Amino acid sequence: MQEQRYFSDRLLERARQCRSRVIVGLDPQIDAFPGYVQERLQQEADHELLEEMIVAFNRVVIEATADLAAAYKPQAAFYEQYGFAGLRALQRTIALLREQGLLVIMDAKRNDVAHTAAAYATAWLAPRHPLFAEANSWQVDALTVNGYLGSDGIRPFQEVNRKAGLFVLAKTSNPSSGELQDRALCEEGVPGLTVAEKMATLVAQWGKGTEGEEGYAQVGMVVGATYPEMAQRLRGLAPHALILLPGIGAQGGSLQAIVAAAGERGNGAYAASSRAVLYPYHPEELRAASWPEECAKRIRQVAQQLRERIEEQFVGSA
Amino acid sequence: MQEQRYFSDRLLERARQCRSRVIVGLDPQIDAFPGYVQERLQQEADHELLEEMIVAFNRVVIEATADLAAAYKPQAAFYEQYGFAGLRALQRTIALLREQGLLVIMDAKRNDVAHTAAAYATAWLAPRHPLFAEANSWQVDALTVNGYLGSDGIRPFQEVNRKAGLFVLAKTSNPSSGELQDRALCEEGVPGLTVAEKMATLVAQWGKGTEGEEGYAQVGMVVGATYPEMAQRLRGLAPHALILLPGIGAQGGSLQAIVAAAGERGNGAYAASSRAVLYPYHPEELRAASWPEECAKRIRQVAQQLRERIEEQFVGSA
Repeated sequence: MQEQRYFSDRLLERARQCRSRVIVGLDPQIDAFPGYVQERLQQEADHELLEEMIVAFNRVVIEATADLAAAYKPQAAFYEQYGFAGLRALQRTIALLREQGLLVIMDAKRNDVAHTAAAYATAWLAPRHPLFAEANSWQVDALTVNGYLGSDGIRPFQEVNRKAGLFVLAKTSNPSSGELQDRALCEEGVPGLTVAEKMATLVAQWGKGTEGEEGYAQVGMVVGATYPEMAQRLRGLAPHALILLPGIGAQGGSLQAIVAAAGERGNGAYAASSRAVLYPYHPEELRAASWPEECAKRIRQVAQQLRERIEEQFVGSA
Repeated sequence: MQEQRYFSDRLLERARQCRSRVIVGLDPQIDAFPGYVQERLQQEADHELLEEMIVAFNRVVIEATADLAAAYKPQAAFYEQYGFAGLRALQRTIALLREQGLLVIMDAKRNDVAHTAAAYATAWLAPRHPLFAEANSWQVDALTVNGYLGSDGIRPFQEVNRKAGLFVLAKTSNPSSGELQDRALCEEGVPGLTVAEKMATLVAQWGKGTEGEEGYAQVGMVVGATYPEMAQRLRGLAPHALILLPGIGAQGGSLQAIVAAAGERGNGAYAASSRAVLYPYHPEELRAASWPEECAKRIRQVAQQLRERIEEQFVGSA
């Protein structure tokens, strides 16, 4: 079924419903999983069991946080690394989320020239299989993309599904992001916008005309919470772009970044947290077969705290 | 089995053996496939048949060109778009190529922050499964990556397999690549390197100390053959980088670009061609069940012509 509403409107509605700006990452890393799961996988070394365990873990996370998360963000790399077991688990996770009407932002950072970008768009955003008369079981609500190739690497994603969301990497959360992204471009002999800022202006341009009912465009951007001053500047350059902010938690990003990125109306930025929410325990603490209950409790607690800490920043504002 | 030799040495050896600078893309697009295959898929609409047909087509291409291609370059997007059928076909294609000792450059343009880049590296470059005592059936010899995130998005790929090849996007072949890549960076108030040129200097830096016996580093770059003057400049900025040149053929890239990119020794650049080699016929021309023979003949002819046209450029040079 083709979604009839814009991603931006659906995300804002959902965020209001659960009073949350938290996006929960779903990044399976078996070596951080509960001890019980790790031991079973060591004993059996079986691909089907691996798939089951990833799905079981994700189910625990989703059930523990469904009323606390504005959206979920599976990271493709963490599934690809486990081969077909990982990819089947990813597909089942997408199905789990969509069955419950939860939003899925696939963090895959795909990018290519037009012809090939269209194939990536078909893979992740098309409502239907490209050949057979059936629904596309990989379809997600939004996708992260890399804009290094310019307009014709972005347009195919918009053409395949104009209601879907895109988040273009502008300023990434990692320590070395400045090597390229912080370099100033020359404008009439004077240093002008940095590469990341230029990307934000492209984001604004690509989003023009795609605004949903709440005024946000379907082309958003990724801005690392580890660089709060950039969050402020990039927000100014793309006032209608939704901002996805990774880096709060394990990477040490700041809560001020989300306020800066949220914009005047306070609803333009969403904090993605993965490791801090998924693994707030030592694997050894969860060695019993009853790991799901304890795991869910810990995860829920951390997600709830993160939500509250973020929401407190907005008290009194719009 | 961990490959004991550097990718750069293996590629150069292979290119000499088959006297070819051609890299054959393996990009399945069913709507360009022989008519017979398209009709069967319309009649049966079956995922297993789809997988079989992609593998059958790739097998025809590989058999027709094995002595003409320096390497093969499957493009991940074209497999992802067909879901599991496509991904299984991709895995079988990798196996087919590796069984015959042919080199596989996976064109996936992956990129992410360090922690996540390591998961992508595990997926595509690790010799072993990350959990089980078995070979990684997705392992390829080289991978295309996007360097927008800087050093710590590249280093994990090198750490997972220091013998593997990387090709970082510098100047892409598409019409809009200049929107970001051609912008000049400001250096002490004067326009200095463009973004693409800066990327080439990063490529040179990342490759330092990884040179194989023939002097080329394991970090190469992608430079569109559609921009020959840039091929020349980027070669100068990263003298030890192998250059992968897409865009000759369907995208109208120039043969001069490969000479410019090849460098003084004439062996630093390799032309990737996909559509022009794979689909040199109208689907309707190949409606019989005997399509493989005719298809192989046409593909071989085009690949051979491309190889000769490129090799002619180097006659008389080193």
